[in-house]
Amino acid sequence: MSTIASTSLTMSSSIIAFLDFFGIAVFAISGALTAGHKRLDIFGVMVVALITCLGGGTLRDLILDAHPVVWIENTSYLFAGIIAAFATFVIARFYRMPMRMLEVCDAIGLAFFTIAGMQKAQALGHSPEISLLMGLMTGVAGGILRDIVCNEIPLIFHKEIYATAAIVGGGLFLVFQYIGFGPEISMIVGMLTILTLRLTGIFMGLSMPAFLFSDDERN
Amino acid sequence: MSTIASTSLTMSSSIIAFLDFFGIAVFAISGALTAGHKRLDIFGVMVVALITCLGGGTLRDLILDAHPVVWIENTSYLFAGIIAAFATFVIARFYRMPMRMLEVCDAIGLAFFTIAGMQKAQALGHSPEISLLMGLMTGVAGGILRDIVCNEIPLIFHKEIYATAAIVGGGLFLVFQYIGFGPEISMIVGMLTILTLRLTGIFMGLSMPAFLFSDDERN
Amino acid sequence: MSTIASTSLTMSSSIIAFLDFFGIAVFAISGALTAGHKRLDIFGVMVVALITCLGGGTLRDLILDAHPVVWIENTSYLFAGIIAAFATFVIARFYRMPMRMLEVCDAIGLAFFTIAGMQKAQALGHSPEISLLMGLMTGVAGGILRDIVCNEIPLIFHKEIYATAAIVGGGLFLVFQYIGFGPEISMIVGMLTILTLRLTGIFMGLSMPAFLFSDDERN
Repeated sequence: MSTIASTSLTMSSSIIAFLDFFGIAVFAISGALTAGHKRLDIFGVMVVALITCLGGGTLRDLILDAHPVVWIENTSYLFAGIIAAFATFVIARFYRMPMRMLEVCDAIGLAFFTIAGMQKAQALGHSPEISLLMGLMTGVAGGILRDIVCNEIPLIFHKEIYATAAIVGGGLFLVFQYIGFGPEISMIVGMLTILTLRLTGIFMGLSMPAFLFSDDERN
Repeated sequence: MSTIASTSLTMSSSIIAFLDFFGIAVFAISGALTAGHKRLDIFGVMVVALITCLGGGTLRDLILDAHPVVWIENTSYLFAGIIAAFATFVIARFYRMPMRMLEVCDAIGLAFFTIAGMQKAQALGHSPEISLLMGLMTGVAGGILRDIVCNEIPLIFHKEIYATAAIVGGGLFLVFQYIGFGPEISMIVGMLTILTLRLTGIFMGLSMPAFLFSDDERN
Repeated sequence: MSTIASTSLTMSSSIIAFLDFFGIAVFAISGALTAGHKRLDIFGVMVVALITCLGGGTLRDLILDAHPVVWIENTSYLFAGIIAAFATFVIARFYRMPMRMLEVCDAIGLAFFTIAGMQKAQALGHSPEISLLMGLMTGVAGGILRDIVCNEIPLIFHKEIYATAAIVGGGLFLVFQYIGFGPEISMIVGMLTILTLRLTGIFMGLSMPAFLFSDDERN
């Protein structure tokens, strides 16, 4: 088992590093495109992209007092976001962006960021409920900040199953850990759950129930 | 005096604990209702409610470097906010919310949060002016963040006497402490002042002077 | 050289103190005027003014974990912002504000805040790229927060050369330090570059390229 574990650890290390940058890039692209719809200039596009891809992790680190903040400790996250935003700025002039594919990539980013955020909170010794909240924050706060900066009501507050996917998947991650499954199995189960739920939401157009006032029903 | 003091301390401990959760609940309801007017889904309602009831204290703790942040130290605040928001989400479907009564409750929340925020800053050794600012932040920042997230200009920037009540009451709290009154008397005076001023604002429709450009007068 | 250096150090200390308060005042005025255009009341005007003039430095200090935050360490910044905002509130009722002159003052504030923010990050031992980002944050985040609170898309994301000026000037500041020039020369070169570029932007109406979707070109 130990050889398999160490092999899978090495393999999973590179996968995690890949998913990390993949998530950063996808969120940066989503920020750049939202900024683009507002006709922002190259600087605005950069800032909105960075807020989108680094905002969630930054907020988590500030609240958990986990200094240095993730992109100060490792500036390659910063450069990954800048490069992805710049590429989007250039490419979108010439090609129609494949929106549906980007949504799928964004779902992968959400799945990974949520679980990674939970693991960071757990590593700092926080309780399961705080870890779940911090995972959720890591996964969705960037998108919320993106929409606030772009003067929109955050999309994830009224679009198809999004945060709910993160909550359910993050919850399962905790349950699997609690039952006694290893960190890798738990992580994979959590991520796949988030991904599946989110993709179901995208392709079946499912959304959560919205707030309804009793007045609405009368009028 | 000592028996009275200790009795009143015990009594006031339970009152303070009650006011704490009362404030959380009222602010969470106000957040949930604002989110409801924007037709957010259940998740959006939860997030806006939590930002409203915990945002002010979180911002204060981040700026004062007072870790762990209040709701990480005591997760029952978090659950109180979630329960209040969920209850609002459900109840508002069937009953018309008693808006005027909610405004009165919100005034109690403002009064308590402002003074409690000042006490926390003072306990950390901060000057009177910083404590006043931190109390104000605890009392009003949640509502400001609520409106920013919901894409509105913060209500308290242009509604009836709100922050002014907190500033005056917080100032009196400081003056009473300075003169030599005990912490309880000072706290009660401060809170009652805020409450009275805010209720006067609500029921008499008083507001603070608004910004006026000289051009307005000419045209 | 040493006499000249010490004389110039004394001189530059007072100049720096002057520029510090000048920057605070100018940014507070810009915040108050933006709030004024939204017809906020005196409290709203104060809050928006303080967010504008202290927001960038606060965000920088939170992210760098540099406690106490700048205006808690030195409350005179706070009072400078409050006085400037109050003066604007009063004066704007009677006089037309000299907008073009305010833009020039704002450019001076931008130049100084950017370089001062970089120096603080460097003093805390951060790398050139993080220092540049922190300088940029110190210079522009206040204006971004001002516009978010006032429910506008941040002006600096689509107006004439603004952040670009800060990036180029901040970059030159780093290059001059790297080459071996003294801190004062480097600072002056950086600030003058930012000022010149920003003034060029204002008076020649130059702006950065905006995001363009390929669809735009087709339709």
